[in-house]
Amino acid sequence: MEPSTGRLEAFSDGVFAIAATLLVLEISVSSTDELGLGHALLHIWPQYLAYVTSFVTIGIIWMNHHHTVSLIARTDRTMLFINNLLLLTVAFLPFPTGLVGTYLQRDGEQAAALAYAGTLVVMAALHQVWWGYARVNRRLIADGTPDSALRAVDRAYVPGVPMYGAVFLLAFFSPLAAVVLTFAIAAFYLPSAALFDR
Amino acid sequence: MEPSTGRLEAFSDGVFAIAATLLVLEISVSSTDELGLGHALLHIWPQYLAYVTSFVTIGIIWMNHHHTVSLIARTDRTMLFINNLLLLTVAFLPFPTGLVGTYLQRDGEQAAALAYAGTLVVMAALHQVWWGYARVNRRLIADGTPDSALRAVDRAYVPGVPMYGAVFLLAFFSPLAAVVLTFAIAAFYLPSAALFDR
Amino acid sequence: MEPSTGRLEAFSDGVFAIAATLLVLEISVSSTDELGLGHALLHIWPQYLAYVTSFVTIGIIWMNHHHTVSLIARTDRTMLFINNLLLLTVAFLPFPTGLVGTYLQRDGEQAAALAYAGTLVVMAALHQVWWGYARVNRRLIADGTPDSALRAVDRAYVPGVPMYGAVFLLAFFSPLAAVVLTFAIAAFYLPSAALFDR
Amino acid sequence: MEPSTGRLEAFSDGVFAIAATLLVLEISVSSTDELGLGHALLHIWPQYLAYVTSFVTIGIIWMNHHHTVSLIARTDRTMLFINNLLLLTVAFLPFPTGLVGTYLQRDGEQAAALAYAGTLVVMAALHQVWWGYARVNRRLIADGTPDSALRAVDRAYVPGVPMYGAVFLLAFFSPLAAVVLTFAIAAFYLPSAALFDR
Repeated sequence: MEPSTGRLEAFSDGVFAIAATLLVLEISVSSTDELGLGHALLHIWPQYLAYVTSFVTIGIIWMNHHHTVSLIARTDRTMLFINNLLLLTVAFLPFPTGLVGTYLQRDGEQAAALAYAGTLVVMAALHQVWWGYARVNRRLIADGTPDSALRAVDRAYVPGVPMYGAVFLLAFFSPLAAVVLTFAIAAFYLPSAALFDR
Repeated sequence: MEPSTGRLEAFSDGVFAIAATLLVLEISVSSTDELGLGHALLHIWPQYLAYVTSFVTIGIIWMNHHHTVSLIARTDRTMLFINNLLLLTVAFLPFPTGLVGTYLQRDGEQAAALAYAGTLVVMAALHQVWWGYARVNRRLIADGTPDSALRAVDRAYVPGVPMYGAVFLLAFFSPLAAVVLTFAIAAFYLPSAALFDR
Repeated sequence: MEPSTGRLEAFSDGVFAIAATLLVLEISVSSTDELGLGHALLHIWPQYLAYVTSFVTIGIIWMNHHHTVSLIARTDRTMLFINNLLLLTVAFLPFPTGLVGTYLQRDGEQAAALAYAGTLVVMAALHQVWWGYARVNRRLIADGTPDSALRAVDRAYVPGVPMYGAVFLLAFFSPLAAVVLTFAIAAFYLPSAALFDR
Repeated sequence: MEPSTGRLEAFSDGVFAIAATLLVLEISVSSTDELGLGHALLHIWPQYLAYVTSFVTIGIIWMNHHHTVSLIARTDRTMLFINNLLLLTVAFLPFPTGLVGTYLQRDGEQAAALAYAGTLVVMAALHQVWWGYARVNRRLIADGTPDSALRAVDRAYVPGVPMYGAVFLLAFFSPLAAVVLTFAIAAFYLPSAALFDR
């Protein structure tokens, strides 16, 4: 029996939306700041930056995931397992996001940025494995899907690991620049890659 | 390729419902109150006010968003990006809601109310940009949608920024009044605006 | 324009499921218990009782809500506002559940149980207002719905306020008994009331 | 009246996805580690292990649940109540997962692992009761479902209690081994059991 992709999709959609919305719980402000709450709220700007970066990243990755699932007609146990690992990585993102928000511009910022970038590298790698498994010999691809649609997804997923690998390397030199680059990837690169390829 | 609005809608619905339900996690009571738990539970009334205000606001905005999406037939990468920014703001609301609940009637109440009102101003502005982008030259509007339906949405979104701007200004003078006005907008103005216009 | 009940339903379903699942976040154990973790885990049994009671209650109320919505064909702004208030009360339940779990069998247990029962009374009252508004003169009821189906829902909702009112009164004498009665209502009364009436 | 399984399914799907995604909130790192954040992040590896184990377990159990529901045509009050108890156990999992993550390799690890395995035993037992209730005399089974499909589900659910019972016993000797065995069950046994039986 080869189950359809319906339940894989429902579970995935839920996890993406919940993970993005949980990000806000990582934001907190210390009420003991002697300069007052207004100052404290400005002082925690790294938390806002980390929140915005992760929210936009999850939103875009969800759209790519959702688009790709629409090309897939069936699933199997290996695919479900890979998909679970991928979702596990997405749902993990609030933790390193919280680290970046807390430690950026403070002791530990390098470790926080490396944890963040490392999670994104794993996520990109799993996304590529996930797609590669479905695509090889059109194993799980819907009949009638044109090759051009498959190649468009290929082109979208191939740069993922190198791009987030570059973020990882950058984190050694400038954790802040690494986070900004992550935001730029989500804002400028990903939206144009898979969804609107011509 | 122009994706339909289905996935935009599912992701948006999830984020609205989760953000509203997470608001309760911002409520807490200090068990060290020497007058007993009963007194402490009455003492934290600003937290209840903030909770109710944000819940009703998210509920109504979600309905307006959902209604407007029903007029939109297709989406593009710019629209998805604006929608992501809008959801990001909605999902952020539990944080300033928690600030208002914690700081109202205490030191820092002005900063808390300004953060709250500022978030609502940004949300209203993004909602207007979101709608404006779809509506200009009927860029993303479903064929056959009558002009009167578009004008009804216009009338509903135009007052958003001025209204929440007024809340922002009021927060300088009376943070409590600003929160009460926010509640009144959600309870009395928004329900009548877009959904039931004739 | 009279919107259909679709979006009311999707938002409601989400809030019920999320509120029930968030209950677990109210459970915590103090790691400083000198008798060891095993003892501490047994010692917090009120938290398990509160968790189970609220989870079963939300689950059953959600089913009743969902069933009733199936009899409703259209909605209006008043209905949406009442529904929002009802969901607001459901989503609030994790807070008094946490109070009961923390304070039962300790100082403050009466206040905790009263807050819990009070929330349930408000929820039952709003549920009745919600149904009454839809039902009067069959204002929002689907054509062709038999009167017997409406009377079945009447019979299910009428005892809500008295029952939870009895829980409230009982909380003055025995907070523990009040929580146990709440569990019994969810386990034995509610499932038989609206859904399977003949 | 015999309600269909639609609402049971929607509520269940939501609870599984939310419970899995909430697991990340149990992960935290102490910022006071004097060896720096990088060291602290490596030191909390039991939290990652617990997170991955529970996420994969919930993901697989959700797929089995979803598959089984597809064989069920109708529901009744007993079934809804059993299903609620089952979901209650799933939604509880983040708490013992947090215990395992916090206490593994420290004082209290046995109690934590027993709480974790005990929850899984209860979940497996309820899953079997849930299935048994639907299956006896094909009480709730869709007409036309072949006996082989029922026997496949039988074979998938029967080993649940013994397997998690073995995890429970193993926790007395080696809490770490118990968690690793739990992961292995989710990764290797469960995917092959119900979904792809031939």
